[in-house]
Amino acid sequence: MEKGIPGWTLGDLARRFGGELHGPDTLQLARPVPAGSSDPEGITFAESQKYLDAVMGSGVGAVLLPPSLGEADVPFVRVSSPRQVFAALLAEALRPMSLAPGIHPLAAVDPGAFVDPSARIGAYVVIERGARVGAETQVFPHGYIGEDCQIGARVVLFPRVTLYRDVSIGEGSVVHSGAVLGADGFGFVWDGKRHVKVPQVGSVRIGANVEIGANTSIDRATCGETVIHDGVKIDNLVQIAHNVSVGANTVIAAMGGISGSVTIGERNVLAGNVATVDHVTICDDVVLGGRSAVVSSITEPGEYFGTPALPIGEGLRQLAIMRKLPELQRRLQELEREMASLKEKR
Amino acid sequence: MEKGIPGWTLGDLARRFGGELHGPDTLQLARPVPAGSSDPEGITFAESQKYLDAVMGSGVGAVLLPPSLGEADVPFVRVSSPRQVFAALLAEALRPMSLAPGIHPLAAVDPGAFVDPSARIGAYVVIERGARVGAETQVFPHGYIGEDCQIGARVVLFPRVTLYRDVSIGEGSVVHSGAVLGADGFGFVWDGKRHVKVPQVGSVRIGANVEIGANTSIDRATCGETVIHDGVKIDNLVQIAHNVSVGANTVIAAMGGISGSVTIGERNVLAGNVATVDHVTICDDVVLGGRSAVVSSITEPGEYFGTPALPIGEGLRQLAIMRKLPELQRRLQELEREMASLKEKR
Amino acid sequence: MEKGIPGWTLGDLARRFGGELHGPDTLQLARPVPAGSSDPEGITFAESQKYLDAVMGSGVGAVLLPPSLGEADVPFVRVSSPRQVFAALLAEALRPMSLAPGIHPLAAVDPGAFVDPSARIGAYVVIERGARVGAETQVFPHGYIGEDCQIGARVVLFPRVTLYRDVSIGEGSVVHSGAVLGADGFGFVWDGKRHVKVPQVGSVRIGANVEIGANTSIDRATCGETVIHDGVKIDNLVQIAHNVSVGANTVIAAMGGISGSVTIGERNVLAGNVATVDHVTICDDVVLGGRSAVVSSITEPGEYFGTPALPIGEGLRQLAIMRKLPELQRRLQELEREMASLKEKR
Repeated sequence: MEKGIPGWTLGDLARRFGGELHGPDTLQLARPVPAGSSDPEGITFAESQKYLDAVMGSGVGAVLLPPSLGEADVPFVRVSSPRQVFAALLAEALRPMSLAPGIHPLAAVDPGAFVDPSARIGAYVVIERGARVGAETQVFPHGYIGEDCQIGARVVLFPRVTLYRDVSIGEGSVVHSGAVLGADGFGFVWDGKRHVKVPQVGSVRIGANVEIGANTSIDRATCGETVIHDGVKIDNLVQIAHNVSVGANTVIAAMGGISGSVTIGERNVLAGNVATVDHVTICDDVVLGGRSAVVSSITEPGEYFGTPALPIGEGLRQLAIMRKLPELQRRLQELEREMASLKEKR
Repeated sequence: MEKGIPGWTLGDLARRFGGELHGPDTLQLARPVPAGSSDPEGITFAESQKYLDAVMGSGVGAVLLPPSLGEADVPFVRVSSPRQVFAALLAEALRPMSLAPGIHPLAAVDPGAFVDPSARIGAYVVIERGARVGAETQVFPHGYIGEDCQIGARVVLFPRVTLYRDVSIGEGSVVHSGAVLGADGFGFVWDGKRHVKVPQVGSVRIGANVEIGANTSIDRATCGETVIHDGVKIDNLVQIAHNVSVGANTVIAAMGGISGSVTIGERNVLAGNVATVDHVTICDDVVLGGRSAVVSSITEPGEYFGTPALPIGEGLRQLAIMRKLPELQRRLQELEREMASLKEKR
Repeated sequence: MEKGIPGWTLGDLARRFGGELHGPDTLQLARPVPAGSSDPEGITFAESQKYLDAVMGSGVGAVLLPPSLGEADVPFVRVSSPRQVFAALLAEALRPMSLAPGIHPLAAVDPGAFVDPSARIGAYVVIERGARVGAETQVFPHGYIGEDCQIGARVVLFPRVTLYRDVSIGEGSVVHSGAVLGADGFGFVWDGKRHVKVPQVGSVRIGANVEIGANTSIDRATCGETVIHDGVKIDNLVQIAHNVSVGANTVIAAMGGISGSVTIGERNVLAGNVATVDHVTICDDVVLGGRSAVVSSITEPGEYFGTPALPIGEGLRQLAIMRKLPELQRRLQELEREMASLKEKR
């Protein structure tokens, strides 16, 4: 059994979640596993025949099945929502990274900083003058919290997060390792001989319940604020430039690149590696397909795709026709031949 | 008023910059803000009707206007170049991140390293044997400066910059948090069974007045040097491979990917997410549009765009026609129908 | 002469590698250099006329030539495989970054962690409870090794590598600076009002002889494992999402983005900035051209290219025709004119 996870018996699971037991009551399960795993102590779930097929013959310990599917060849429990039960098991199996209470003796906290007594500060963390760290917040080792940063309650900064000065982070937000918040916006003016730096005096404001991925960078505003609103989820290796605003509950998958002064609405979903030019606006409830490039503002909710991003039907149609280009070229040549032959005969 | 910024009165600004005062002489302004901000202590600028429109009704404290525009509905000062005055205000508002003088007692500086007495070295910085750090240079916390690195005067390494061994950085350059300079070039030879590493023995040389963005990586040369010349500006999350040379005053926006042994000329501008294949050369004064892919050398100055990168007129034309593909397909089908009908009638 | 490199004389090189000496026996050479370098103490190699041309007139110290090429205008040694001899010189010239034996007094190693006595642990490294570090392994400064991580023998973690909990790394693997292994997979479920996090309880397993580039991120599995098999080489700024499996000896160049639950076979070669959608499978021995996008599973070995990735012939043909689109459009218009004129005349 997994260290520190109590595990479950199949019978207990059936009873707790009101399921129908098909297998040994005392079967011991140690951990949730993906469908297709052959872990004899693992429990997985299937909500479609495809996933049930992956389970069959895998030798996995047990599987959660919905009423709509047939029987598995391993022990199973039939529940109304396998996905929900599985999510509950994931939550029980979670062993968060641990951090000792208090301020580690090897942390460097400026006397002019305020750290809530219930916060946990790891080894080699630097907290500069004027910074505030809220209740129950965890700053893992190697974090850097610049001057006048404001970190709310129950925030988690995983190891090695950098906040330049004046960055604020709302309650319950999570920032993953290597993320850099508040570096200078990329602003230069060509004076005829060289690029002269535009001083970047603004800040970064992160709302509550935001999650920011590993090695992502969010630049400070030239002046004013770069804002990530409540509930936004940003994946790894994403670039958010100066003066961007990302609306509440928007999701940006890995390797997205949001250019300067872009405004993104609420509840957007940007698939992987989406890019934008600068200064465009995207309204609420827009979905952008993978690697789309937004080159002008989007004012209607809906799905978009392509370079440039088009309404998804048009975008996919264009992609499909591109594949047929060699054929179209042949048909064009054939027509030209026929035309030539027609004209000859006249 | 912003901590540590003196702020300005509207009248002072008008007098200092030779402007015409339209508003209360004693109006107190605390910070520069973007056009559209409604900060009553903010001052912004507008050089076009579009930006003046954003200011109107915003309730911002004041705005700088050029002679060519009408009146604002907030206090304003008319000056000959609002942008220049605004840049001056940004410079005055800048509060650089601070670092205490000297070597922090929690830094690990090898006795065989040389640190100029006027340099500032932060907590948890590691400086290895043979490294030299120049006058007034600042190395923020968590920096790693490998053996035999040569850092010039007035360089700023923001928190958590890694320099592998033999990296040199010229006077006045700035490297942002998370950047990695001098990691191994990506060189392997397939021996029929596995990839055998090609030893990477070269180095990285960064010129003067270069700026390198957050989480950018610049690999050491296989042998010889990867060189970033004077005045180059590189944004966040950029990849520069081994043996690349980037010419003076070139700009590379976020997420650019420059492959091995590429030579880029002077005063290039690479927009976001531009990529190149390896071993190509790009001449001076080339502008590459966003997400362009350079697959062969570019020998003529000018603007380029697309995959592969084409002279911009051709590149944009191609993009425009792609959007018309469904229509072209329909026209082709119509011609085929007409041709069939013509042939039938004959 | 380079510090710490003994260097070679031309005569010694000829004798050691069974070559034919064309130049002074005692000519002192200090370092391997790229073809085209004019370093008088450098030695380079040329295996084609193109590279010999780069050497001619360069003033480089010496060059290694194969039997098939003519004479150089600098001292040279003729050997059967210049490339192999040059690789041997690179290996001799390599000065790996050094790390003092033992555990640095400024490292924070939990008493519940095990560090092999022959391992080297740098300053400011954190090693958490339950972690194991194998024989002769080197953890450079600022590394973070989370709870229950298992690091094999002769592993090198360059400065500032983060391993979240439960990450395992096989013998002889190398991880470059800024890489983050084991951050949470990007899994959220929309509950109608907000994105609810799916707990990420799995782990990351890295095989033996793997190399992972600077600022790359490899997420932990939702449950089960994200697996990078033996001999895989991953470049800088690559994103590997949760539950991905990368087969043995596969190569992923810089800025690749592998989405969740993707399975990549053995001996694949992914050129720069290749992306995939989630849940696809790629078989063994597939080569993907730069910036290709894999949107459906690939079941046949071979070369692929494009968006979506097509067999390379088809992919390149499509690219070539795109360039001809303006011409095709003109030809279509011409046909339409001719057709109109034909119909008029009838």
